[in-house]
Amino acid sequence: MPRILTVAAAQVGPVHLTSSKEETVERLLALFNTAASQGAQLIVYPELTLTTFFPRHLFQNGDELDKWFEKGDISESPLLKPLFEAAAEKKVDFYFGYAELTVDSKHYNSSFYYSAELGKIISRYRKVHLPGTFEPFAKADAVNQLEKRYFLPGDIPFDAFRAPGLIKGALKKGQEATGSTIGKGDPILGQLICNDRRWPEPWRVYGLQGMELMLIGYNTTSHSPELWGSKKPMTLDEEYKEVMFHHKLVMQANSYGNSCFSVCAARAGADDGKWGMIGGSCIIDPQGHIVAETKTDDDEVVVAAIDLEDCRQGKEKIFDFDRHRRTEHYGLISEQTGVKEPELLE
Amino acid sequence: MPRILTVAAAQVGPVHLTSSKEETVERLLALFNTAASQGAQLIVYPELTLTTFFPRHLFQNGDELDKWFEKGDISESPLLKPLFEAAAEKKVDFYFGYAELTVDSKHYNSSFYYSAELGKIISRYRKVHLPGTFEPFAKADAVNQLEKRYFLPGDIPFDAFRAPGLIKGALKKGQEATGSTIGKGDPILGQLICNDRRWPEPWRVYGLQGMELMLIGYNTTSHSPELWGSKKPMTLDEEYKEVMFHHKLVMQANSYGNSCFSVCAARAGADDGKWGMIGGSCIIDPQGHIVAETKTDDDEVVVAAIDLEDCRQGKEKIFDFDRHRRTEHYGLISEQTGVKEPELLE
Repeated sequence: MPRILTVAAAQVGPVHLTSSKEETVERLLALFNTAASQGAQLIVYPELTLTTFFPRHLFQNGDELDKWFEKGDISESPLLKPLFEAAAEKKVDFYFGYAELTVDSKHYNSSFYYSAELGKIISRYRKVHLPGTFEPFAKADAVNQLEKRYFLPGDIPFDAFRAPGLIKGALKKGQEATGSTIGKGDPILGQLICNDRRWPEPWRVYGLQGMELMLIGYNTTSHSPELWGSKKPMTLDEEYKEVMFHHKLVMQANSYGNSCFSVCAARAGADDGKWGMIGGSCIIDPQGHIVAETKTDDDEVVVAAIDLEDCRQGKEKIFDFDRHRRTEHYGLISEQTGVKEPELLE
Repeated sequence: MPRILTVAAAQVGPVHLTSSKEETVERLLALFNTAASQGAQLIVYPELTLTTFFPRHLFQNGDELDKWFEKGDISESPLLKPLFEAAAEKKVDFYFGYAELTVDSKHYNSSFYYSAELGKIISRYRKVHLPGTFEPFAKADAVNQLEKRYFLPGDIPFDAFRAPGLIKGALKKGQEATGSTIGKGDPILGQLICNDRRWPEPWRVYGLQGMELMLIGYNTTSHSPELWGSKKPMTLDEEYKEVMFHHKLVMQANSYGNSCFSVCAARAGADDGKWGMIGGSCIIDPQGHIVAETKTDDDEVVVAAIDLEDCRQGKEKIFDFDRHRRTEHYGLISEQTGVKEPELLE
């Protein structure tokens, strides 16, 4: 039985140091309306959607840093109220990335999932794999990446969750299932943020919970030689292509390897007219193929109707984890963080 | 300091049910000579190199099955003696996949690594992720995949190992290293076989041991709808492209994600004139780019000089495991084999 839903990635173009959060929310609403008018039931927004990618700059702790964050419970933010209201009215779910400052003053790079059916946030996530450095790069014109300075690593497990109201005829609790429930209930979703997508571990932890659709917002700089450490000098164009290649490679491979769809939404274009970010927001199927992608580096929506039934092929055959995985050999993955090389030879 | 070595993939074209192992070894020697004449120091042969891909056929246990296997210690096999001798004489290492029947009558899909410097096999591996089914498919013209019937899952851990004699000036035990030994000693290698390459877990276990070069032999059928379970009918050409796409996707993504080179060698072409296998033997760099690949579906060698120093960029920056991995969230990967979905909703 087909389990079709229509999803969207809402890519957000340049957001400058001087952009106000209110004007950015106006753009997010415009993207919302475009996506909703094309039938989207679920919209994915980027990482740190409300501001410029501030971790490229050095700020002093305190108000200078905290102004980039949303304080307290985001579901009560006056700033996002228009978006919550639009979602409730038009019955559209959304994923949203933002900088979270908790009531006990902890800083996270966070996202949430709002369910229109239930009229509330039903899942929260905090970025686990923080890239970059604690100290700014010494080189004066380096593109900094200070996420390790500004955020704590996420403390919420990779918890897959079901979202109601998206699929007609989804199997409910207490209804009789014939055989496995795979591909029969409400969609099973996962959330990641940006650099998380390069690590197969979070994908797999979600995959082990039957995740069918991964939602990811990201900010990926197209020029950051200090961060990546390339030994070969590249032109800006070559570097852009290389960064885009890696972005798509990990999105496609991890979607394939976990037999899931994925939707990823970028912050794109040149913030402040000079800090280049890749776009490449896209929707990927469980065989790893890109089914829709943005064409610009600006505000843009891509929409696709997807059939979650397509996850079944992988989940029941080549990536039937129960039949094929051999956990007796995987211990090192969760036991050891860094590298331990074999001894040097005599 | 550059750490350059020259590696080769020796792709093997059709091997028929009626082909003798001796004539196949003749072809392997020809490939050896071609690769060695191009300066190869390390040659990767396919999976189950000595025979046709026999798991596509149903054989009775006993002699009918066992004739496809090599009994006892492969290093004493008269059949492979010419290859061991050539390797010793020309100082060329090699990886080799074969069907192993142990002295206590266990069947494995195995590989080994022969070091010319030490004049012996220095690492053995047995395929962990066996694809396919125990029972043959019911459909009369189905392409079977009976590896789960014929082989036990590998019982040897994913142990990375160093191979001596390949790199001039490699740091040795007792010599003083300044800082980390990453990228300074003899090359750190890993072995996988075929379907293992689709699973990020074995790559990561090797990656956590600093693996710089992954060696993989494979047999991948270009037409096997019962095995993959595609819901869409495809032409043979579409299916070939799809299978090749997945092959390259997992090879490139896992090489990138573990900042390692990889060399993979296929059995290719149409065994018995009708059982299609993809080629696509290739050499991949730590950024996930294919640096050399075969162009035919027949016996063919590709050779490339690679600089293991190129692994450093990833291992020290974006994929610096020690700084970025968060094992507190990875437990499920080694604790749980199959899928446990979230509860159905009310």
